[in-house]
Amino acid sequence: MSNVIDLTKDLINRRSVTPEDAGCQEMMAQKLSKLGFNIEQLVFEDTTNMWARRGSEGPLFCFAGHTDVVPSGPEANWQHPPFNATEDGEYLFGRGAADMKGSLAAMLVATERFVKKHPEHTGCIAFLITSDEEGPFINGTTRVVDTLETRNEKITWCLVGEPSSTEHVGDIVKNGRRGSLTGDLIIKGIQGHVAYPHLAKNPVHIAAPALAELSATTWDEGNEFFPPTSFQISNIHAGTGAGNVIPGHLDICFNFRFSTEVTDQQLIARTREILDKHGLEYDIKWTFNGQPFLTSSGELVAATQKAIQSVTGKATQLSTAGGTSDGRFIAPTGAQVIELGPVNATIHKVNECVRMADLEQLALMYEAILMELLLD
Amino acid sequence: MSNVIDLTKDLINRRSVTPEDAGCQEMMAQKLSKLGFNIEQLVFEDTTNMWARRGSEGPLFCFAGHTDVVPSGPEANWQHPPFNATEDGEYLFGRGAADMKGSLAAMLVATERFVKKHPEHTGCIAFLITSDEEGPFINGTTRVVDTLETRNEKITWCLVGEPSSTEHVGDIVKNGRRGSLTGDLIIKGIQGHVAYPHLAKNPVHIAAPALAELSATTWDEGNEFFPPTSFQISNIHAGTGAGNVIPGHLDICFNFRFSTEVTDQQLIARTREILDKHGLEYDIKWTFNGQPFLTSSGELVAATQKAIQSVTGKATQLSTAGGTSDGRFIAPTGAQVIELGPVNATIHKVNECVRMADLEQLALMYEAILMELLLD
Ligand SMILES: [Zn+2]
Ligand SMILES: [Zn+2]
Repeated sequence: MSNVIDLTKDLINRRSVTPEDAGCQEMMAQKLSKLGFNIEQLVFEDTTNMWARRGSEGPLFCFAGHTDVVPSGPEANWQHPPFNATEDGEYLFGRGAADMKGSLAAMLVATERFVKKHPEHTGCIAFLITSDEEGPFINGTTRVVDTLETRNEKITWCLVGEPSSTEHVGDIVKNGRRGSLTGDLIIKGIQGHVAYPHLAKNPVHIAAPALAELSATTWDEGNEFFPPTSFQISNIHAGTGAGNVIPGHLDICFNFRFSTEVTDQQLIARTREILDKHGLEYDIKWTFNGQPFLTSSGELVAATQKAIQSVTGKATQLSTAGGTSDGRFIAPTGAQVIELGPVNATIHKVNECVRMADLEQLALMYEAILMELLLD
Repeated sequence: MSNVIDLTKDLINRRSVTPEDAGCQEMMAQKLSKLGFNIEQLVFEDTTNMWARRGSEGPLFCFAGHTDVVPSGPEANWQHPPFNATEDGEYLFGRGAADMKGSLAAMLVATERFVKKHPEHTGCIAFLITSDEEGPFINGTTRVVDTLETRNEKITWCLVGEPSSTEHVGDIVKNGRRGSLTGDLIIKGIQGHVAYPHLAKNPVHIAAPALAELSATTWDEGNEFFPPTSFQISNIHAGTGAGNVIPGHLDICFNFRFSTEVTDQQLIARTREILDKHGLEYDIKWTFNGQPFLTSSGELVAATQKAIQSVTGKATQLSTAGGTSDGRFIAPTGAQVIELGPVNATIHKVNECVRMADLEQLALMYEAILMELLLD
């Protein structure tokens, strides 16, 4: 039987910086193949993906995750070498320990235990693994999902191994994520000399009331699962550097994180309405980063809550906070989607680490979820 | 007798790009010396200045100007070589033709004619010439004025040769300039991730209402001589470039061009009041570029108006519009200050040129002013 700590170390020691997979999927495929999984490698451009499936009938439970990690930065800044997994006290250190090689190991261990104990389980089990989650997410999960859709292969329940927990493993489960919409706005003025303001039109001055209104606008109230939609200006620039020149244009980049109470089209329309009301001349380019998604209830949420309660003795909390995840590509197919993984305190930082006992508990939670969903 | 066109050509052909003088002052000194002027060369750091004075009793009339010019840019862009004065039709082309080597030539010619005709004139004549007007104006007129002040040498009337005219020579005379005050403002926020806005404080959002108020504020109504005080934001910057980071601070540079109806201290106080009212946390650094100055009336204004009327047959118009000039350093000593020079349409541009007939008229105007002020 596989050991979750050993498997995590094996994965950490493979230097799979986005979009490299560095043989992680190959190792996983070998394990899964022995358990009766059919393995498909799906390579799109620079990205290696794996779709592994066991069984052909009934509901499909899918573990989803990524083998790639963010860069370590200068290795000298690390207490332990980032690509040489090291135990130190209760913790295992290494890049990807928490995001999300520990989760992948726990998925493998849980699956091995479950399949060996219950070879005749109902439904199917699958692994949807990419090496592009930390990158531009163009050739990863989204293209695997497209492939599945074209052959009408449907995921019923999807558990994404993203590190959802904040203090104790399982304290938080993500049952959705906000949508994300970015706008690149250019407000047009007329350049001139500060000594001749009547010949110029200062784009900062004419934009200021509109920016004040955009910043103060309540876009929605949120709902039971989502906080209110948030608008944030991330970048603003105007000026030549010279102190005596009125700038000709003002460039602004802003981002909406939005709830299921509004749509991207409504946000675009309302933004335009405010800019137009202030009589601005502008160009705007929108980049849509993903719809919000939500699994408010259902068998997967119930099974996850029950599994966490049984392993930790504590209730979990559903949350939709935080950044985007690959769940946004899977949820639109109609799948129920949950994210459950280790504590995320150190992810993307130096000295990334995970409590080893948490990974053991995570494997137990994953196994309990399989038992809840795939046994009669 | 000197010829104004020949003298202008001689000066243009000397490549006196700021802070170079390239022998212009030496040439002027030789002419003035022959007319009984006492010549002082005042060198401060990289800047050559000249103080030339004829006479020791009575009111002191001073011609002020600069021998330096702004760079030509690529000479291939010029119709005629910028440092090889060329007549073409009615115009003389070359860098400095209008700003302000033509004026210097006209001053020399007017002085030569006046002194030869009226060697026993009343009062004194002086030339205050710098080679740093187009540069940082640190080692030029301001230091010569300091030198004069320490020995209590007072200018009564000062005629600056800056190109004041817009369509015909003498149509506009500057009898003052607005003050200039620059602020470098840093609005403090708290950096964060757009997905967690409650942990951050977006400085663009909190500043927007204050910027709107600053832009909309009426600072004064101006007066008979000055347009209303103008506030302009010249530069604004925030953001790391990343689209998902809420910036930690917003950097703004702004400039006031202000009338004699407010003081720099009032503008500083009112700006702070608006920023404070909006509850902003900020740092601000002020750079004071010069008090407004005004010669609303007096013998110099009257003599100038009369001289222009007699030469052109047309009335002139007093104005305080436009950028700053070295007049701001001379006016605070108590001198009456007027700026009168050729048409400024081509200054600081490629193909800078001046109508040759305008320079002839300018010499006549300057001579008429001397006659008005320095003959019994
Ligand atoms: Zn991740
Ligand atoms: Zn000038």
